[in-house]
Amino acid sequence: MKLSQSFVKTLREVGKDETAKNAQLLIRAGYIHKELAGIYDYLPLGLKTLENIKNIIREELNNIGCQEVQMTALQNPELWKKTDRWDSEKVDIWFKTDLSAGGELGLAPTHEEPITEMMKTYISSYKDLPTYVYQFQTKFRNELRAKSGILRTREFLMKDLYSFSADEESHNKFYHEVEKAYMRIYTRLGIGEDTYQTFASGGVFSKYSHEFQTITPVGEDTIYYNKDKSVVLNEEVLLPEVLDEFGLKKDKLESTAAAEVGNIFTLKYKYSEPLGLEFNDKDGKRKTVFMGCYGIGVSRVMGVIAEKYADEKGLVWPENIAPYKYYIIPIGEQASKIAEDLHNEHPDDIILDDRDFRPGQKFADAELMGIPYRIIISDKTLAKNELEITSRLTGKSENLPLKKIIKNFS
Amino acid sequence: MKLSQSFVKTLREVGKDETAKNAQLLIRAGYIHKELAGIYDYLPLGLKTLENIKNIIREELNNIGCQEVQMTALQNPELWKKTDRWDSEKVDIWFKTDLSAGGELGLAPTHEEPITEMMKTYISSYKDLPTYVYQFQTKFRNELRAKSGILRTREFLMKDLYSFSADEESHNKFYHEVEKAYMRIYTRLGIGEDTYQTFASGGVFSKYSHEFQTITPVGEDTIYYNKDKSVVLNEEVLLPEVLDEFGLKKDKLESTAAAEVGNIFTLKYKYSEPLGLEFNDKDGKRKTVFMGCYGIGVSRVMGVIAEKYADEKGLVWPENIAPYKYYIIPIGEQASKIAEDLHNEHPDDIILDDRDFRPGQKFADAELMGIPYRIIISDKTLAKNELEITSRLTGKSENLPLKKIIKNFS
Repeated sequence: MKLSQSFVKTLREVGKDETAKNAQLLIRAGYIHKELAGIYDYLPLGLKTLENIKNIIREELNNIGCQEVQMTALQNPELWKKTDRWDSEKVDIWFKTDLSAGGELGLAPTHEEPITEMMKTYISSYKDLPTYVYQFQTKFRNELRAKSGILRTREFLMKDLYSFSADEESHNKFYHEVEKAYMRIYTRLGIGEDTYQTFASGGVFSKYSHEFQTITPVGEDTIYYNKDKSVVLNEEVLLPEVLDEFGLKKDKLESTAAAEVGNIFTLKYKYSEPLGLEFNDKDGKRKTVFMGCYGIGVSRVMGVIAEKYADEKGLVWPENIAPYKYYIIPIGEQASKIAEDLHNEHPDDIILDDRDFRPGQKFADAELMGIPYRIIISDKTLAKNELEITSRLTGKSENLPLKKIIKNFS
Repeated sequence: MKLSQSFVKTLREVGKDETAKNAQLLIRAGYIHKELAGIYDYLPLGLKTLENIKNIIREELNNIGCQEVQMTALQNPELWKKTDRWDSEKVDIWFKTDLSAGGELGLAPTHEEPITEMMKTYISSYKDLPTYVYQFQTKFRNELRAKSGILRTREFLMKDLYSFSADEESHNKFYHEVEKAYMRIYTRLGIGEDTYQTFASGGVFSKYSHEFQTITPVGEDTIYYNKDKSVVLNEEVLLPEVLDEFGLKKDKLESTAAAEVGNIFTLKYKYSEPLGLEFNDKDGKRKTVFMGCYGIGVSRVMGVIAEKYADEKGLVWPENIAPYKYYIIPIGEQASKIAEDLHNEHPDDIILDDRDFRPGQKFADAELMGIPYRIIISDKTLAKNELEITSRLTGKSENLPLKKIIKNFS
């Protein structure tokens, strides 16, 4: 991308109503634009970062046999009445709307009901099980307050995966596959070392669910752990009987702030039973499908990574998800020509700052945008056939031969 | 994709409420699933087809300097009040909803208002113009009736592009670039020969707009043209003064049914003026930005192509947008091993029908799904080191050496 042609500009200030660091930085650096509280547009840099995160998740899910679909936002109330989740007294984050042709519709805050209903078309026998279906889909949640930037919004991108198994044993096998896939995802996203699988409340239908929590001072949650972090608990399960189960003593536990970056649930028959998702088993008997669901808030994860890595100069993206890997600043005429050629050969890897600005402004923008490597090409370094490359993460610079840098691009 | 592992099955029948051929075929072939009238989910094959269409559009728009963003569905009424498009008496396809925190929100049927408002952050000088921004975004329209399958739905995927220019001359230049890009898009989508740019009503703010209409018996529109089709008119502009302008006589015109696959508008100052999108021109004067907008209904185009190419056996996808290029049916043990190897090397190109079904059922599904080439591998043809390959479009078969077919994959 050539910055001279980008319609987006970095901004010095954001509105005072924006209190979350992630949104402040993402707005200033030109990744997102705020429509309303909790409602954000994605600009080219933001969209590319989001796509990079999606692709990592997609690869890991496809590798464990999941199939991608895309369901709708508009929802049929009849399905949600069957599971008692339509009533706004019971589920208080619905956006509802009226159909001109008559009747009400809802905007999906999650998709258990419609996917369970849909699978009735495709699952009839034990031979159809197990099967795993996921999507990247915009969810709508009518949050009363929205002040954590893109961590908690009214419209957001979520990856939701649903599993359909013949019995609990088969379900558990896949559940463990997802646990491992999730940790591979967080590792590739650059937050693996600080992300823990925690025990969380399972609600009325299961003893526990699991969350994945990333340690960060801005996290909304508090997690508790023993010395070696082999057992990590969410605050809501910090009860005497749970502590006994794991052989823990409350006063020996340490705690820290953390942000949820994923959750996985054993749903059992909670949705398949009221909606009637059944199959004919080997023994000829009619049985109910055993379900699980597995979420990752994609835009939320982007916000957590933004918060976690940011420093006083701006964003710092891990290489795997950065929208571009290199930010090239040419100084001088010959340098501009070489930079232009490099950009034209590798447009997906390079932001070329060809704007008519002083170098200081360009250095500041490179740091604000959080691009992993800044490359300065000047007529001076070129005399030695070298470029200066600086890591955004470590701040370390080195002069490298032109050929070596070009080799890195491919 | 291995069919034995696909959760989707082809269906013999669809509900009687589904009267549109495109939706009937797409449901039977396992591309889409119906949630409610005018509301469809995309299954793996449908999603892949949609992505192929998106990628062609994206490439052509990026080539003419457009930049991709993603705006939100939830809309701030205040912006739409300024352009007098909030009142449901005036715009009758709104879905509206209430915010828990107080106030109303709308679900975007289009995005002129929010993008005009957003650009106020980034456009301040003539140096920022022209600039072109587009998105692939889910639109919501509260249609009273929905019975054309995925051609006219309540929730659909649209590509909408907006242009921002300093004056009409600069605008016109880009407008012509888009006209050419659109024809390249339709050609690559396989409907170029039957798609015409038509004169359509420009509404109150412009003499004409243009539509792109694809000739097909199921089209909802009627278009009129002279002998060489150099002038093509929509029905709504078939007025004496228009005929005079183009030197046409009504009784010499021919007509045909057609489906709209795109439209482009010169908006002038319709949105930029009430929303206050201005810039400082070279002469130091404050001026209003000159705008245009350019739409392609992505899911609609998929439906038009489905209708246009389909025959009595099912769908027929043009190669460029087919979800997979080859449908391999192995017959016999050695054949299955070779088919498996081919699939593992080229999983994105091949549907491997490894189901425990009789060949007749597999042939029928290959045709219903509309995959461009069916390849039969049998122990018999393998004895001659050959495979049988059949074109879905022409129905012609030929036996080709194994090596030649493998060469085609790469």
